[in-house]
Amino acid sequence: MALVTLTTDFGTRDGYVGAMKGVILSMAPQAQVVDLTHDIPRHDVAAAAFALAQAAPFFPDGTIHVAVVDPGVGGTRAAVAIDAGAHRFVGPDNGLFSLVAPAPLRVHAITAPAFRRDRMAATFHGRDLFAVAAGRLAAGAGIEEAGPAVSLTGVLALPRTGPVPTTGRWATVVHVDLFGNLITDAGAEELPAGARLRVGGRVIDRLSTTFESVGRGELVAYVGSGNTLEIGVREGSAAEVLRVGRGAIVRIEE
Amino acid sequence: MALVTLTTDFGTRDGYVGAMKGVILSMAPQAQVVDLTHDIPRHDVAAAAFALAQAAPFFPDGTIHVAVVDPGVGGTRAAVAIDAGAHRFVGPDNGLFSLVAPAPLRVHAITAPAFRRDRMAATFHGRDLFAVAAGRLAAGAGIEEAGPAVSLTGVLALPRTGPVPTTGRWATVVHVDLFGNLITDAGAEELPAGARLRVGGRVIDRLSTTFESVGRGELVAYVGSGNTLEIGVREGSAAEVLRVGRGAIVRIEE
Amino acid sequence: MALVTLTTDFGTRDGYVGAMKGVILSMAPQAQVVDLTHDIPRHDVAAAAFALAQAAPFFPDGTIHVAVVDPGVGGTRAAVAIDAGAHRFVGPDNGLFSLVAPAPLRVHAITAPAFRRDRMAATFHGRDLFAVAAGRLAAGAGIEEAGPAVSLTGVLALPRTGPVPTTGRWATVVHVDLFGNLITDAGAEELPAGARLRVGGRVIDRLSTTFESVGRGELVAYVGSGNTLEIGVREGSAAEVLRVGRGAIVRIEE
Repeated sequence: MALVTLTTDFGTRDGYVGAMKGVILSMAPQAQVVDLTHDIPRHDVAAAAFALAQAAPFFPDGTIHVAVVDPGVGGTRAAVAIDAGAHRFVGPDNGLFSLVAPAPLRVHAITAPAFRRDRMAATFHGRDLFAVAAGRLAAGAGIEEAGPAVSLTGVLALPRTGPVPTTGRWATVVHVDLFGNLITDAGAEELPAGARLRVGGRVIDRLSTTFESVGRGELVAYVGSGNTLEIGVREGSAAEVLRVGRGAIVRIEE
Repeated sequence: MALVTLTTDFGTRDGYVGAMKGVILSMAPQAQVVDLTHDIPRHDVAAAAFALAQAAPFFPDGTIHVAVVDPGVGGTRAAVAIDAGAHRFVGPDNGLFSLVAPAPLRVHAITAPAFRRDRMAATFHGRDLFAVAAGRLAAGAGIEEAGPAVSLTGVLALPRTGPVPTTGRWATVVHVDLFGNLITDAGAEELPAGARLRVGGRVIDRLSTTFESVGRGELVAYVGSGNTLEIGVREGSAAEVLRVGRGAIVRIEE
Repeated sequence: MALVTLTTDFGTRDGYVGAMKGVILSMAPQAQVVDLTHDIPRHDVAAAAFALAQAAPFFPDGTIHVAVVDPGVGGTRAAVAIDAGAHRFVGPDNGLFSLVAPAPLRVHAITAPAFRRDRMAATFHGRDLFAVAAGRLAAGAGIEEAGPAVSLTGVLALPRTGPVPTTGRWATVVHVDLFGNLITDAGAEELPAGARLRVGGRVIDRLSTTFESVGRGELVAYVGSGNTLEIGVREGSAAEVLRVGRGAIVRIEE
């Protein structure tokens, strides 16, 4: 039984997500379609890339992940099917898969007539191309049947806010989650024992293990579920308390 | 393996949708239950009818679609099971299925004891009647077992705002999607070459193929994914820019 | 085919819920994972307990319900697997299961290495412990394999607002649903014929069967889908009209 996951910025109020599910299940009736999220902020490719990186690696081998956050739909960006070894990914070539498949084994453009509807709406490749391609793969096709081999060109660019330190260690906030936790790109191994952190004009003078290590409403730094440095507020929002967001710099002082 | 889709205005914060899923899966353990949307604005039958029309037709033959947007729950409106050929629909007879099953083959009122819980809550037919009926159908029952054949009486009425032109062509906005795109009822074939559109005091002087045809924040008219005229704003909301909504009139000038 | 339901306060914007689904499906590829809700207000254990009580009982025998609303994650609260007869429950011992499994047959702490990831994030037991445990159970393990038998210690405390009557009957609002309906703990059998209700400074002088019994915008009292007293407003919100919420007292006068 094939597993197909969906990640979009379509929201859940319209019939768009349902239409994609219908197309996939029409082509692969035995598939199980699993929602990752449809609440990516509209056109926020970086947020989608991050959500994929949080969730996709935990799925079983053979899973097909479809992601459609596609501000360039109908334009010149390529549609691609990616073989990343254990998993395959389907979506636009705009950087969506930068984190989850940084070095894919094979990438094919989706151009074959069997991988798209005869009549494609220029504004809804999610339904008319990506869902069809995922359905084909779920029904047993190989990604090489989708079209010619290509290279990914989409690049994920994360704007940095504030001056970047020229000396010492620092981390960048790569995601703010729904709870207001600041997730950075600094791996646990980059954090020296006794590290002090400086962010948003505040100092956090130690790493904790859990939120319960601090009082309610207090700042807490910890190694999060992605094994990187995170900044939170116990039963509150670090993003609100610190007034910083994605791209913010966290200085790591010994 | 039966497919059952769900469309409601219940939101996703309470246990109501979960209860419906439990009832269906208790009666048809092999079914796959698929969310279309639970975020229809409360009591907005027209929005639900539109979401169904966007999504339901793409599902495989044999799919059972349950829709519960039911301001008259517990009142006199009938509960119905509809055979529309490839698909069956279950829900209140209030116009919900006007777009997706405009000319059904057979309609049966749901009155049989086997198609409802022994003790029905007057306020939650979603769980106590519609989910039970869908479970029965998913387990192999025919709609004629639900109760006597009836005719649909529910009618979908869409209010029009502003004066309706007495001459020339015009379209009505039938839906505003989450992105603020205005979706009209004018089919692609009704749009003459070189059409100029007038809506919300603004003029759009051509049809485009994609959002990328215009600059950011600019109005764009195009044939959308339902093969009808839509009005959007690139990386913005046409509903906000034009301050118009469902029922608005779009004049089509040659 | 095992059924696993999910109830969390994670929201649906990040990859957290998707990661849990991936872990469960990796361990039990034949399972069907069903969303109950991920929109429980953050850290609101009582709201989650209520949503579970609304939905879980309707699932077929053998269903595994995972619930993660866990303000004490990484702290001293135990992680538990509960055998409640027809269903099993997995989550933190903080009162989440008070309503749905008030007298479980067996409770086991989840401590066995096979029931958690080798490397657990202190902030994400949903993925690294509860999803793993659910996956094991879905793949055929018994709850006694999870760890030693324990007793539940978590207690659900519902704050009451306003003075509690010393005489006569009264009910407490235990939940406000998305529509603003006030759901109380007073069973239908506690409501005398001809009961008059007093809440938020207003009087409702009879019980109705449906919302259609009153005019639009008017208060209505009825026995709801959980077979308890509810207070609503037809096509409106009782919580807004009465300016009361969870914990409010409803006096029941004969």
